[in-house]
Amino acid sequence: MEKMKKIAVVLAGNGVYDGAEIHEATLTLLAIARNGATYQCFAPDVEQAHVVNHLTGEEMAETRNVLVEAARIARGNIKPLSDYDAKNFDAIMFPGGFGAAKNLCTFAFDGVDCTVNPDVEQAVRSTVAEGKPVGALCISPVLIAKILGDVKVTIGQDEATIQAIENLGGTHQKTTHGQVVTDDKYKVVTTPCYMLDATIDQIADGADNVVKKILEIM
Amino acid sequence: MEKMKKIAVVLAGNGVYDGAEIHEATLTLLAIARNGATYQCFAPDVEQAHVVNHLTGEEMAETRNVLVEAARIARGNIKPLSDYDAKNFDAIMFPGGFGAAKNLCTFAFDGVDCTVNPDVEQAVRSTVAEGKPVGALCISPVLIAKILGDVKVTIGQDEATIQAIENLGGTHQKTTHGQVVTDDKYKVVTTPCYMLDATIDQIADGADNVVKKILEIM
Repeated sequence: MEKMKKIAVVLAGNGVYDGAEIHEATLTLLAIARNGATYQCFAPDVEQAHVVNHLTGEEMAETRNVLVEAARIARGNIKPLSDYDAKNFDAIMFPGGFGAAKNLCTFAFDGVDCTVNPDVEQAVRSTVAEGKPVGALCISPVLIAKILGDVKVTIGQDEATIQAIENLGGTHQKTTHGQVVTDDKYKVVTTPCYMLDATIDQIADGADNVVKKILEIM
Repeated sequence: MEKMKKIAVVLAGNGVYDGAEIHEATLTLLAIARNGATYQCFAPDVEQAHVVNHLTGEEMAETRNVLVEAARIARGNIKPLSDYDAKNFDAIMFPGGFGAAKNLCTFAFDGVDCTVNPDVEQAVRSTVAEGKPVGALCISPVLIAKILGDVKVTIGQDEATIQAIENLGGTHQKTTHGQVVTDDKYKVVTTPCYMLDATIDQIADGADNVVKKILEIM
């Protein structure tokens, strides 16, 4: 029997406005399981950029830790991203949510001049160096473009974000619900998810299509 | 064209150890969408019983609001449960997680002598009075048994919880992954989900089977 493929999933917290988008994260895990692979969740052990009240949209006067909050999505089964070793995985995936642009890098605050969390950068670079696929949903392709530069990705249709990706040296391909763009050089697979006005079943399709493509090009 | 069925989903927070179990909640929403219905999330506007660090399992010295935290799963589109009117919905569903037994009622602390949040009790009783289905996953069937008494449910195989359901006047039917038990008198549909040692795709199956049965008996 062929050994099950193992995919690392990097979570940026827990909640669309300051962390990992919960549907995208959960449906990434579901897609991995449905396609016969296994997953291990990771998150950087850092404070969130801020905490947003998801009922009102206002900032809350508290601090939360990305790894601790992401553990809610992972049911406690999560490791600090500094423990990630690309040699032990077949691919790595980044669901979206503002956390990808606030906690994994600072794109939401600083645009193309953003900085990237060093564990995130190391995780992406080491996976690419191993010739293994990187999947990114929603806004996460911007993070990948910031790290890799000349990579072909999609975030859907949003013109400002497309411009930013091109300014980072990337190539953007417009897509709609569930469509996937693959960069053959870096093996980067992306889909827009909630960067479009989407329903939850469209998110499930997008995550599933990325996982299928990743398993295909491994 | 037939009007789309509308299902209310009651969330008990956001995270398995002190709120709604995130996979069960997300996959309930997915199942509703996949089966051609729509959903509206609700949560009681109360403080959580406590806050648990999902990385360590330890209690944290902070307070969080059930509605505000549940809004993370609902992407902000959530209403206080006091706004729920059974006349406007075709069914109501309760995903699981400890929050169902800590925030919606106090079963996790007080066993069969637990109290039930008044908005939760009103929501269940008014839905049953309308002859509309109630779905409950994981530990939530205990909450339904506390409210309705002589109801037939499943929480899987756990003997202590089965005994509690029987002490509350309910009837328990043992099940395994994805299996559904339906109480015809009250139109209550239940499945064990993470009350068994389950994988995320088994949770998706359980949620989907409950939604299908609910739509069938409406």
